[in-house]
Amino acid sequence: MSSAAPRPADQDDLWSVDEHLEDILATVRPLEPIELQLLDAQGCVLVEDVTVPVSLPPFDNSSMDGYAVRVADVAGASEEFPAVLDVVGDVAAGQAVDLLHVGPGQAARIMTGAPLPPGAETVVPVEWTDGGLGEGPVTGMRARSLAPEGAEGHVHVYRSAEARAHVRAQGSDVRAGDRALDAGTVLGPPQIALLAAIGRGTVRVRPRPRVVVMSTGSELVQPDESLGTGQIYDSNSFALTAAARDAGAIAYRVGAVADDAETLRSTIEDQLVRADLMVTTGGVSVGAYDVVKEALTSVGDEDEPGSGVDFRKLAMQPGKPQGFGTIGPDHTPLLALPGNPVSSYVSFELFVRPAIRALMGLDDLHRPRTRATLRADKALSSPKGRRQFLRGAYADGDGTVAPVGGAGSHLVAALAQADALIVVPEDVESVEPGTEVEVVLLG
Amino acid sequence: MSSAAPRPADQDDLWSVDEHLEDILATVRPLEPIELQLLDAQGCVLVEDVTVPVSLPPFDNSSMDGYAVRVADVAGASEEFPAVLDVVGDVAAGQAVDLLHVGPGQAARIMTGAPLPPGAETVVPVEWTDGGLGEGPVTGMRARSLAPEGAEGHVHVYRSAEARAHVRAQGSDVRAGDRALDAGTVLGPPQIALLAAIGRGTVRVRPRPRVVVMSTGSELVQPDESLGTGQIYDSNSFALTAAARDAGAIAYRVGAVADDAETLRSTIEDQLVRADLMVTTGGVSVGAYDVVKEALTSVGDEDEPGSGVDFRKLAMQPGKPQGFGTIGPDHTPLLALPGNPVSSYVSFELFVRPAIRALMGLDDLHRPRTRATLRADKALSSPKGRRQFLRGAYADGDGTVAPVGGAGSHLVAALAQADALIVVPEDVESVEPGTEVEVVLLG
Repeated sequence: MSSAAPRPADQDDLWSVDEHLEDILATVRPLEPIELQLLDAQGCVLVEDVTVPVSLPPFDNSSMDGYAVRVADVAGASEEFPAVLDVVGDVAAGQAVDLLHVGPGQAARIMTGAPLPPGAETVVPVEWTDGGLGEGPVTGMRARSLAPEGAEGHVHVYRSAEARAHVRAQGSDVRAGDRALDAGTVLGPPQIALLAAIGRGTVRVRPRPRVVVMSTGSELVQPDESLGTGQIYDSNSFALTAAARDAGAIAYRVGAVADDAETLRSTIEDQLVRADLMVTTGGVSVGAYDVVKEALTSVGDEDEPGSGVDFRKLAMQPGKPQGFGTIGPDHTPLLALPGNPVSSYVSFELFVRPAIRALMGLDDLHRPRTRATLRADKALSSPKGRRQFLRGAYADGDGTVAPVGGAGSHLVAALAQADALIVVPEDVESVEPGTEVEVVLLG
Repeated sequence: MSSAAPRPADQDDLWSVDEHLEDILATVRPLEPIELQLLDAQGCVLVEDVTVPVSLPPFDNSSMDGYAVRVADVAGASEEFPAVLDVVGDVAAGQAVDLLHVGPGQAARIMTGAPLPPGAETVVPVEWTDGGLGEGPVTGMRARSLAPEGAEGHVHVYRSAEARAHVRAQGSDVRAGDRALDAGTVLGPPQIALLAAIGRGTVRVRPRPRVVVMSTGSELVQPDESLGTGQIYDSNSFALTAAARDAGAIAYRVGAVADDAETLRSTIEDQLVRADLMVTTGGVSVGAYDVVKEALTSVGDEDEPGSGVDFRKLAMQPGKPQGFGTIGPDHTPLLALPGNPVSSYVSFELFVRPAIRALMGLDDLHRPRTRATLRADKALSSPKGRRQFLRGAYADGDGTVAPVGGAGSHLVAALAQADALIVVPEDVESVEPGTEVEVVLLG
């Protein structure tokens, strides 16, 4: 028994949805951090405070294509009375400037991002000059490879410039020693931009969890094969693999395992090596062939504390039978979901998704919830003592939600039209149209 | 020239943000559909109407673990006066039932999902019976492997059942011939569930676009290497690769290419084979080393109509210099973004992201926008005639947005703290605190 929460003393021995979730989240610990290449860390949670090692920009540099000059040399310049300066060379981005010096009466042609050369005090954009062509203001430079003479000769400057105009000062973005990102930050593209910009090629993050998904049931056939008598297609292993990825995991689909405890046990043992979390569907109810229940009590070392899966009934519809615990030598968490496609999908949303996000170390574990007005032809009925999750279509515009399909837990067709779950609390047996209800947005 | 839109006749020859975007979206066509395995099609747009080939469920089956019986045999049954029936065998899910027949006075033990056997009219849940043990109501069955005797002997039934109680009727979820999903549907986990459930192992979708990202600039050094004089770290290739993935693409990061037209041209030609879209950063302005501009006019067959990249100035800040066109024999679209990290990121959000989503065939190309009240210490200033995009932090709770960092386009540190772009229109030069502004939510 891995359960952190005590079993409830309810008359029906039912666990509430919240108790089950609490038990899961009390057991699932964030994965150990590892050092990952920046692009492999996308979407992951940083576990270190990252400090800026070198100021950005690392040197004073030009924010324009133009000429690096001395302020006094362009003071009072105009189109009528341009300043005429000697061009002493080019400063391109990435070029060392140690040999170039801008003296009185001189200008260096400078490119955006290039370091301000010694002696220069300001930058005049090329559009304020004749670009060295002697024919009035230009709109840009000719490519160096086509017109090497642009790096020498004379330039007419038509406007004055203040000191350090068009110069990005060293350290004006971030300074060495500043905190760039705090531990706990989720790394999206802008955070990756900053890390790369300060020279960090790898970062310490919690990795994406590896989730192994297997469905169970001797009735299950792979899509594209032909159905025999009494057979149906396996949809859970596909749906939950996709959903696990969507939640941020690296998901492995094992597919359907037949209802044989020995086969299931050895499949699970095989798969444990690549699992941070295992998810099974089916075989958790009260039947004589509920193989997950049968198999899972004896996986792993029973002497190890914290190993074992507990099967329980939840005050929930769909999704009453559930299993949760840890298995194997590493106490890998396992969620055993019911086999019905809608039950397993709803269970995934409520229990597996938060578990995946807890493994990632995210703070924000849950789907957003909102309140909406029920739009329906007739009252919704809900079993007393069960928290019901109905598939719904949410309309953001007018804040309403309409049920999609019926309450039957096999209506996978309706699920594909839904974008929300309508929550009907345990103590409510009927919800009239127009009532405000809680809604889980499936995003 | 690939431009579909005519160049604007503005006095400064500037393109508006909308004209540039319109030109891109008029050129970029959705990718040709291909047949993909279900899990490879996640997040893709379906291009076929999918019809249900076989009704779901494909046969009448039990929704409970229990006993399949005839209605008359359990009529009036109670705990005091149970119906006692002969158990003729088990019907498990996935089992052919041709050999089993439930006659008068008989019961078949049946599992959830198993087909209703011939002769049976209804199902009584195991909790309404003694489970064959003769000791009053039970809570479940013992595993068949441990207690094979459960499939024979007698069962006491304590409650009556109506015809077809706990039976899921054949076709009650979807019927053969029904439309399962319409062309244009984006395939998320629930849609994948439905497709698998109706036996579709592959579907025809528009694939994810392959986006090749390269930054240019001789000043660029890879993170984790040491910076020489005048060098900075390459961040754009990392940021935009991450952003392209985030937008739904398969992104390839080429990294930084030096400012040499021949090298850049041959790198682009090499990469074309794996690109549905190319993105470059840097080298698009008016300098003498703006290599992207220099190189891109001669890539591909110039005799081919529709090949060539147009470089233009946009009435936008940051992001004024931009290139767009198509290159190579397949007229692969290419967006040449400015090299400054913030400029390139903002340009990506405004132009590349919609292009990626257009390639995917999505209807919803753009980031969500909203209106928010400006929260700031002082008025924001914005250049006349330019649409300005300032980095902001949006507070959903009170509908405010606060600027993060300054307007300087090199403030990559501020970008990492932002979750929104504040839009200041072309004709606005100052925005007072408390004013309502348009906001792009970066999600």
